[in-house]
Amino acid sequence: MPASPIRKLVPFAEAARRKGIRVIPLNIGQPDIETPPAMLEAVRKADIKVLEYTHSAGNEGYRRKLSDYYRSIGIDVMASEILVTTGGSEAIIFAFMSCLNPGDELIIPEPFYANYNGFAVMAGVTVVPIRSDISSGFALPPIEAFRKALTPQTRGIVVCNPNNPTGYLYSLEEMRALRSLCLDNDLYLFSDEAYREFCYEGTHVSAMHLEGMEQHAVLLDTISKRYSACGARIGALVTKNRGLYESALKFAQARLCPPALAQIMAETAVDLPSDYFEAPRKEYLARRNLLVRRLNSMPGVFCPTPGGAFYAMARLPIDDSDAFCQWMLESFSHQGSTVMMAPATGFYGTVGAGKNEVRLAYVLRQEAVDEAMDCLEAALQVYPGRTC
Amino acid sequence: MPASPIRKLVPFAEAARRKGIRVIPLNIGQPDIETPPAMLEAVRKADIKVLEYTHSAGNEGYRRKLSDYYRSIGIDVMASEILVTTGGSEAIIFAFMSCLNPGDELIIPEPFYANYNGFAVMAGVTVVPIRSDISSGFALPPIEAFRKALTPQTRGIVVCNPNNPTGYLYSLEEMRALRSLCLDNDLYLFSDEAYREFCYEGTHVSAMHLEGMEQHAVLLDTISKRYSACGARIGALVTKNRGLYESALKFAQARLCPPALAQIMAETAVDLPSDYFEAPRKEYLARRNLLVRRLNSMPGVFCPTPGGAFYAMARLPIDDSDAFCQWMLESFSHQGSTVMMAPATGFYGTVGAGKNEVRLAYVLRQEAVDEAMDCLEAALQVYPGRTC
Repeated sequence: MPASPIRKLVPFAEAARRKGIRVIPLNIGQPDIETPPAMLEAVRKADIKVLEYTHSAGNEGYRRKLSDYYRSIGIDVMASEILVTTGGSEAIIFAFMSCLNPGDELIIPEPFYANYNGFAVMAGVTVVPIRSDISSGFALPPIEAFRKALTPQTRGIVVCNPNNPTGYLYSLEEMRALRSLCLDNDLYLFSDEAYREFCYEGTHVSAMHLEGMEQHAVLLDTISKRYSACGARIGALVTKNRGLYESALKFAQARLCPPALAQIMAETAVDLPSDYFEAPRKEYLARRNLLVRRLNSMPGVFCPTPGGAFYAMARLPIDDSDAFCQWMLESFSHQGSTVMMAPATGFYGTVGAGKNEVRLAYVLRQEAVDEAMDCLEAALQVYPGRTC
Repeated sequence: MPASPIRKLVPFAEAARRKGIRVIPLNIGQPDIETPPAMLEAVRKADIKVLEYTHSAGNEGYRRKLSDYYRSIGIDVMASEILVTTGGSEAIIFAFMSCLNPGDELIIPEPFYANYNGFAVMAGVTVVPIRSDISSGFALPPIEAFRKALTPQTRGIVVCNPNNPTGYLYSLEEMRALRSLCLDNDLYLFSDEAYREFCYEGTHVSAMHLEGMEQHAVLLDTISKRYSACGARIGALVTKNRGLYESALKFAQARLCPPALAQIMAETAVDLPSDYFEAPRKEYLARRNLLVRRLNSMPGVFCPTPGGAFYAMARLPIDDSDAFCQWMLESFSHQGSTVMMAPATGFYGTVGAGKNEVRLAYVLRQEAVDEAMDCLEAALQVYPGRTC
């Protein structure tokens, strides 16, 4: 079981803080955007005598509301096609365990969300990475590369759209190419759409928007980023494939139910004003623009402009991103501050890839992003492993 | 993946309710005991702007409090030896995945908590059941039976104490026998102690009380039953084995964190008055006495007196407990009511075992238990599959 690249540097950050250094956390997608107060108020007002188990698939009332939400974004699903999970993580685990047997293969464009590795280990399946490249902004690799990677064990494709860690927003053409690939080869399309509401260029295309994919598409979702409620641990697995749903429900029954208090929060979220997302989207866009501009103004640094989510991958003039990120916490500070980033190596399935890339989450207010960029710029000037 | 025997009859119960029949749920361990109001009040009062991820191992403050709780019951563990999980379910999954490889074998006295099957499927391991018998009240089978079941693949023993589904409370001698077995054969002892606080005869012996078991004992815990907070989804994996802990932490990091709001609740629970458990224990004892007396007064029925938890297994004069429990919901009512029970077959690993046994959870007030027993008594008089 591999360690999380997002969290493995935590002990070094804790040590830095003990030395009195302010650590600016750009390593993890923990937004500083306020959780909508109405969601927390709903929990405060709930009249609870006994905090009981809920339905294993989640409260029916919440699932009905969720189906309204999905319909509002052009995804026509019923409450009975939605399984509420403990965070998006559990949705992914249930999807893998329901669809795949040990020894099966999953194709994933790399770099990819590192925890897919852990979930694949849990399900006993092998991840087959296909390289997307920073020079093309991490666009979908040519579909021919997917076809070449197919084996008799290939059972599915995982796509995260907009992407974590790259921020890339897949186009309609790219999604259609994946559709053909899945239909031609009877593959599942596992579509992680945690960042759906945060797109800055173009339109989001869900796997559930693709025609004829009823038996193949599995939507993996979460409220963590959508409503800045990461600690709630409420996600969803959505599919029109009944056999898959029934299998996932058995896993859901074994763990009894998703968190009850958080479901109350989540249900309220669906009733937020329809323009709720405008303000956070505008704020993330401003942060993105600031971050990308600052990065690209540093000598030797390249950061393609991400179309969605709140991550950017940057190529740095460094020897080793793991060593660099650790050095930033252990041996560097600038005006009393340093920056925590995620080394890109952990997001690649290919050993050795990503050694000069880091992931930055623009989840902090612009002043903090600016200060973090001051730190990074200063650090790159003195880092002993600088390459150019 | 097998369906949960506790929940698989839910559609029949829903159909009965639609027909206007009152279904008394003795199938599931969902107590009607009030969740301590102070726990819910703590969530109401929490000043939360952003509901953030917590530490993957759970909030450190909560883990420190938990270590106080464990010390108060003679289990000397530090916060760093406690991993907070999403319910006891996740603690079991993490323990299995951290300690076992696919193909490994786990010995479990049967009948056992049915979801162990599902968790074993998730970890790719085989459950080897060893029969405990209703005629001895489901005491631990002779340790010789365990020794005979050992193979080169055997990696651990699972024990639930006090037991779900039988209510049996293992004695110090029985726990010591398990200790010897584990030390002699280098086996993990996975000890599910969800019902620790509800013992009515004798004293609870934790796996963590056993000497020399630091590398072998894994305590699996939950607040669900202890504080009647099943919907919170807060459990814990506790172990002094550092390697095991570090491995489990990687799984915990992959799923990011346990629910944040529920951790606030759980932390408050540790500060409840020290006599908090007396009232629910007294109430469960009265319910147990009523249930066991009523069952044993029915012709052809036998129910041993459980020493703990809030379950009883009863042998009924029936052909097939699955058919009977379904028939109770589909085809029977008494004064407008019927009873939902869990067929014992799902708690046995041995196919065909438990066909004349059911599990009853005495989680409802005494009036409801009494009415349920009226229903059951009337049902047994007219059930077409009655055997004697």
